[in-house]
Amino acid sequence: MAQMVRVHNLMVSSDGYAAGEGQSRERPFGHADPARLGAWAFATASWPDRSDPGGSRGLDDYMVRDFHRNIGAEIMGRNKFGPQRGPWADHEWQGWWGQQPPFHTPVFVMTHHERPSFRLSDTTFHFTGGEPAGVLRRALAAAEGKDVRLGGGATTIRQFLDADLVDTLHIAVAPVQLGAGSRLWRSPEELRDRYHHDVVPSPSGVVHHLFWRR
Amino acid sequence: MAQMVRVHNLMVSSDGYAAGEGQSRERPFGHADPARLGAWAFATASWPDRSDPGGSRGLDDYMVRDFHRNIGAEIMGRNKFGPQRGPWADHEWQGWWGQQPPFHTPVFVMTHHERPSFRLSDTTFHFTGGEPAGVLRRALAAAEGKDVRLGGGATTIRQFLDADLVDTLHIAVAPVQLGAGSRLWRSPEELRDRYHHDVVPSPSGVVHHLFWRR
Repeated sequence: MAQMVRVHNLMVSSDGYAAGEGQSRERPFGHADPARLGAWAFATASWPDRSDPGGSRGLDDYMVRDFHRNIGAEIMGRNKFGPQRGPWADHEWQGWWGQQPPFHTPVFVMTHHERPSFRLSDTTFHFTGGEPAGVLRRALAAAEGKDVRLGGGATTIRQFLDADLVDTLHIAVAPVQLGAGSRLWRSPEELRDRYHHDVVPSPSGVVHHLFWRR
Repeated sequence: MAQMVRVHNLMVSSDGYAAGEGQSRERPFGHADPARLGAWAFATASWPDRSDPGGSRGLDDYMVRDFHRNIGAEIMGRNKFGPQRGPWADHEWQGWWGQQPPFHTPVFVMTHHERPSFRLSDTTFHFTGGEPAGVLRRALAAAEGKDVRLGGGATTIRQFLDADLVDTLHIAVAPVQLGAGSRLWRSPEELRDRYHHDVVPSPSGVVHHLFWRR
């Protein structure tokens, strides 16, 4: 089967923002509260960082656990990787995820500024400039026949959508308004010309939007 | 993580039947029409027997593709395996699935009548009498740490529910009435005392019922 480019578990507000304004080391999502955007996911049995046992195994868990299925590489924007902008002042920052990042594959961080690759546990981070199509070629090769996850944020996903490089998307819309920040869309209707679209309200209050190519 | 016992993609009518009456070689579901019970699944990209390319990748596909995730063995009732009753007249019958069964693990067929194990491609069928708990012990051992799928039919699932041996269930209720046959329930409410319950209507018209232990 052909390799696919997939978006999973991208959490956005009801007005379409995946992150707020004012990202910092202390606030990776800026003025947005990740606990409110992601409450549906954090309650599931499959959430990778859960510290308490148990967790739900209903619809939301299906969504969360599909994150790893047949994924061989991830592409992410620089702002998902960290709060720095411009040239790398130092190489101390290694992402938000500690010594055990939840990716377990090569990760390609899109940036105009060079930086050497490094490895943390079973995740290797590479830093790459260039257009989406070129970055995707590298990620597809690294994925060795498996699919590529497009990890976000919203700006990176928009770039890949504009280049028509995305096969499937799962966007989880939380009942929260943000008003400003990094925006994925004004309305999910924007994608309907190119994608089939399932709208699936969850008992948890989030609405899952699933898109696949027409 | 502890091994789980999981039911996936069990298709039932709106009045709770997983198969009709009068099973035969020509009609594995008796008077029920599998095309109507399973239309939602057959339309998905992940349906194992699909002959045409394409297929949907929305909610129904999430359900279908979870069938294989971390499964190490299946348990099924004899009537899922074939239309014969009583002692095996011959060993020619090897299931409904041809030379490439979709299981890819050991399968334990519950029957009071002995029959030697046999292998088809990467699926091995074993035949076993005894109570659900004993059959489950064998399946858990064969699964080598992975989960066990409880494959149906309804009578077998009822036996395991009555023995409180089921951890999660996905039941897909199709908008079809059958009136008679092999019944899973009168109402999904029957399981609510022991299970959490997500009710998820799909755009395809089927309603997915997801249960996990309280």
